Parts: sequence; structure tokens; C-alpha cells
Amino acid sequence: MDDCRKIDPDKLKKYCATLFEKIGVPADEAAIVGDSLVEADLTGVESHGVSRVGIYMKRLEEGVVEKNAQLKVLSEFPGGMVIDGCNSMGVVTSVRAMRMGMEKAKESGVVFITIRNSNHFGTAAYFTKMAARENMIAYACSNAPSTMAPWGSFQKYLGTNPFSVAVPTADEPIVLDMATSVVARGKIVMSDKKGESIPEGWAITKDGAPTTNAKEALDGTVLPFGGPKGYGIALMIDIMSGILSGASFGTHLNEFWDVETPQSLGHNFLILNVSKFVPADEFSSRIDQMKTEIKALPKIDGVKEIFMPGEIELNKRKANMTNGMELPEVVTKELTALGERFGLKFDVYK
Amino acid sequence: MDDCRKIDPDKLKKYCATLFEKIGVPADEAAIVGDSLVEADLTGVESHGVSRVGIYMKRLEEGVVEKNAQLKVLSEFPGGMVIDGCNSMGVVTSVRAMRMGMEKAKESGVVFITIRNSNHFGTAAYFTKMAARENMIAYACSNAPSTMAPWGSFQKYLGTNPFSVAVPTADEPIVLDMATSVVARGKIVMSDKKGESIPEGWAITKDGAPTTNAKEALDGTVLPFGGPKGYGIALMIDIMSGILSGASFGTHLNEFWDVETPQSLGHNFLILNVSKFVPADEFSSRIDQMKTEIKALPKIDGVKEIFMPGEIELNKRKANMTNGMELPEVVTKELTALGERFGLKFDVYK
Repeated sequence: MDDCRKIDPDKLKKYCATLFEKIGVPADEAAIVGDSLVEADLTGVESHGVSRVGIYMKRLEEGVVEKNAQLKVLSEFPGGMVIDGCNSMGVVTSVRAMRMGMEKAKESGVVFITIRNSNHFGTAAYFTKMAARENMIAYACSNAPSTMAPWGSFQKYLGTNPFSVAVPTADEPIVLDMATSVVARGKIVMSDKKGESIPEGWAITKDGAPTTNAKEALDGTVLPFGGPKGYGIALMIDIMSGILSGASFGTHLNEFWDVETPQSLGHNFLILNVSKFVPADEFSSRIDQMKTEIKALPKIDGVKEIFMPGEIELNKRKANMTNGMELPEVVTKELTALGERFGLKFDVYK
Repeated sequence: MDDCRKIDPDKLKKYCATLFEKIGVPADEAAIVGDSLVEADLTGVESHGVSRVGIYMKRLEEGVVEKNAQLKVLSEFPGGMVIDGCNSMGVVTSVRAMRMGMEKAKESGVVFITIRNSNHFGTAAYFTKMAARENMIAYACSNAPSTMAPWGSFQKYLGTNPFSVAVPTADEPIVLDMATSVVARGKIVMSDKKGESIPEGWAITKDGAPTTNAKEALDGTVLPFGGPKGYGIALMIDIMSGILSGASFGTHLNEFWDVETPQSLGHNFLILNVSKFVPADEFSSRIDQMKTEIKALPKIDGVKEIFMPGEIELNKRKANMTNGMELPEVVTKELTALGERFGLKFDVYK
């Protein structure tokens, strides 16, 4: 792509937000969605970025997801909240729940939030980073429609249930954000499109045999990371997000790409107010010490740098914010077409 | 081993407890340690079982670990507690902290506990199962002395930092309990003793090269499960257990087998009171539905049964409780010798 066509992230956020406003989403909610999608692209997580604007809009326009986000606190107690997302956009409900939870954690120190009746919430790290900016540690997870088999089976039951943990530092936060599958299904889709094979261990065929054929893998199921350990983690996330939250679980969750039925997803958020546990400056200086020690460790041949979780993504973000970002042509074309419906020009370049 | 030599688990618990009492540990604490060690053996986790009685006693007798367990609540707030373990036995401090936390969670719904200044706490599942018996979900983790390198390095920095999650069901709980390394270091020790090679991917040499040689692996470092994902999880556990708890972290933690210095470990416990989130009977019936659905999934060729996390271990426990348990001769010999010092007879057979 030509350098003169670099995209201004802030303009792109505004453009996406305007698209959502045009179909009737209130301005503040539209801004949250636009921000979260572009933030995913900025950190290199294109699968959860603005390439999703089209399907998000479609689900809203079909009425499968509520445009006017509602959120009901079903019950609240000293250490937690039970929230009904009222079939609104997952990212909007989650941002609002996090804001309430962070406020509550100022006093209670710890807040655990369950959300039911929700939809795709984008990247889990978007929410944990909100807390890290306020010197809180957060954990976020969500269940997802079935793509993964329990260990020993070849029939999909669990989602690639992702989770994130973010920890504040004096500088950028340390951010873990991962799916519980070996790789995202999207990577296998890409290999299939390119006609490439995939490494063994990513997926199994519909009969449970190992495969390096991307097409067979897509007909089959993706494998959990770390074998039975990853299966166990994915299962626990489904129990917490689905059953403890009062959402759906397993194969009872509905597909994101199917625009007929609400997904009925559930999410969890744990917020820990650091300064309730240890003095903030002590925490900060010890985190800094750990980071310095790890970065200075000797490296395996061929390794240029040892990274903290999330460091690669935050480096990408920094570069994209400074230099402008790029998007695949297929995505800019889709965004351009979406704007044309409302007389909006895709004028988001630097 | 001969069937007539099967061990009675309850007698073994009492025998171990008496050994600890003989060196000056108060009866209630001695009972906790005896129970937790035998429970590990009952579920097949021999590495954390009564084979540790000797080193536990040695550390207590050398004065490296406090015999009269103290526990200070340094601060308490609606959703959490900050605890100083006062260099007591990790398992005793953790059991007491869990009891306090579970009581508190009756009202607050959610409790997050940090413990500093602690020692080896045995199996994490011992504590999460306490909560599951009271219809609460619990998460437990601990940091551990360095044996694992951050991803990209070959120098040990992180421990095999284990964690457990347990979920109550109408029947046995669902229990995840795992180290964040591919395998426990103890397995490589066993392979080395038997002169066997190990699979590639378990460990790297001291220069960072892949190896299948057990001796080279022991000179090197074990690898995290799931590659960089496991590294990220192990690191987050060290941040939470070590830094947020106000304990030590990374290479500043001291070895369990070194009887000169306190370990300065940290632990975390999260307790969620299920009935504060959803009606207990609804939770129970939906967990049961999930379990039934997973167990009924089609199996890969050669797989006999699909297991829930912890099911294999709890099946072992059931069989051992009914039929009596076995111990390797090296362990019974050590326990016999420890008893002889105090005129105690190793009379623990059924």
C-alpha cells in the first residue's frame, strides 16, 4: 500500500461511529463500538477490527441485536454485580459494566461481574486495559459459539473462549489476551484461501484425525492450546461465562454470522483495585523491576528480544498512531460501500 | 504390591499428623498437613503427597518454617483480604484463609485473597475443593521457585506456577489443577532415573536447544505449556501471587529443597458464592446438563471416555478410599524411619 494512503486512526474511529449512528445507534454507543474496533486493528488484531463493521451493522439492522443498548443490574452485593445485557452489543454493555465495576472497586477493592444475554464483545483486552489505565488489574472472558471439541472428542462443543488479563505499569500495561484454541479459526481460513497447508496440531478432521489440510481442518474442529490443559481452561470459561452468568453455554450459543438469532453469550469481569492490596508506588516499582529483569535475560539463538505479554501489540499500536495505519483493500472497499448508502465519504486518510 | 498391604488413607493421615505433632506442630495444624498430603496421593498426585513429609519436617525442625502457624490479616475490605502468612506452612495458612474467605463470601458474594510471606502450599486443588463443597466456585494459584524461562530465553526466571479452579456440582466437583509447564519437573527426574528419553517440547538445554535427553533437560529449563500462551499465564500468576500479594517473585523466591531460607512465596484465592449470582438449583441443573452433553459426545478412535477436568483424579480417589491405597516402597520406608525416631510404628495398613 502507498504511504500517502495511510489511515488516520481517529478519523477512522469517527467514520465507523457515524456509520452506526446512521442506522440508529445512539452517539455514545456508536463511539464505543468505533473506538473498540479500530483499537483492535491498531494492535494488529485485524480479525476483531473494522472488518466486522458490516456484520455488526447487519445484525443491528435485522433487529437481532438491540440498537438502543439497555443494561439491567439484576443484583448487586459488596463484591459483585449480576448484569443482564438485554441483547445489546457486547462491547457497549461491557464498557458500561466495567465503568460501574471500576467505580465500585474504589471502595470494595474487588468486583466480579457476570453478564448474560449479550453478544460478541470484540477483544477482551479492550476492557482489561480500561482498568489498567486506572491502576487496577482486570481479568475478562467470554464464551463463544462452538468450534472446539472437548479433549477426546471430534465434535465441536466449546468456543475458542478468549480471556485477557491486564496489569498496570508506570508505562504501557502488561496485557495477556488469548483464545483458548491453538490458533484463531481465521488463520486457517486464510491458509485455505492461499491454498497453503497448516501445521499439524492446529485442528482435526470431522472424523477426529490429525490434518495439515486447511479445508479438512475447517470441516473439522480447531484444537485447544496445550492439549487437555487448554480444554480445561476453555471449559471453565464456559462454565463461568455461560452458567454462572445465567447466559447460554456449549452448543446452545448462537453463531455470530447467523443473523437470525441473538447469540445469548455471557461474559465475566474481575477488577482488582491494586492500591487496596499494596501501596501503588511499591507495586509499580516492583513490576518495573520484574520487567527490567525479564527483558535483560539471555536470548535463545535467533531471538531478538524477549517480550512481555502484549508488548508486541502495543508497539504496533504506537507505530500505527504515529505513522498512520493500513487496512486491506477488501476492508476499505467494504467500508466505502457501507458509507455510500448514507452519502458518507470514506475520507479517513492522514 | 500385595493386596494385603493396602494402606488405609485415614490411618495414614493420622500417622503423618502425629509425626508433625511430635516435632512441635499444634494438633489442628498437623491434621491439616496430614490430610492435604494424603489427599494428593489419593488423587494420584504423588509428587505432592506424603513423599514430602520428610522435607516438610526438616524445614520445620530447622526453623526455616514456623511451627506455630501465625496468620495476620493486614487489611480487609468488602471484596478482599490481604494476609501475611508469617512464614508458616503454606497449606495451613491457605486453609485458614479459605475458611475466613468462605465465611466472608456468604455476605460479600466475592472475595479475593492475597497471601504473602508463605511457603509451599501443596496442591492448589485442595483449597478450591473446600469451596466447591460449600457450593462456591474457587480459583487458587501460587508462584514457585524459578524453573522456567520466559519465552525466547533459556534462563529460568518463572516457576511452574500452578493454578486450580473448582466448580460445585450435585455430585463430585469439576476440578482443574495444573502447572503452567508442559509437564512437572518431577516427570523428567523420573525419566532420568529410568534412563529414558523425554518427548521433544518438554524442556530445553541450558543453551536453549531442544532436547529429548532427560539429563540435559534437568540442566536446562522446562517449557511452558502452549508455548508463549503458557508463558503469559505463568507470568500473570507471578505478578498476582508475588507482586500484588507483596511476596517475592521471579528469581527472588527461594528453593523448597534448600533448608536455609524462607521461600517468601505468595498465593491468591478467588471465591465466588454461586447463589449470589444465580439460584443454586438452576446452576446445579445446568452444570449437570453440560456434563451429560459432554460425556455423550462421539469419541476419537481409541478414546474410551471423555472426561471432565479432575474426573480421572476423583475416580482414583474413590477407588483408593474403597480399596485402600498404595505407596512406593521408598516412601513407606522413609515414613517408617521418620516414625522410628519417636517410637511410632508405621501401622497404617487396612
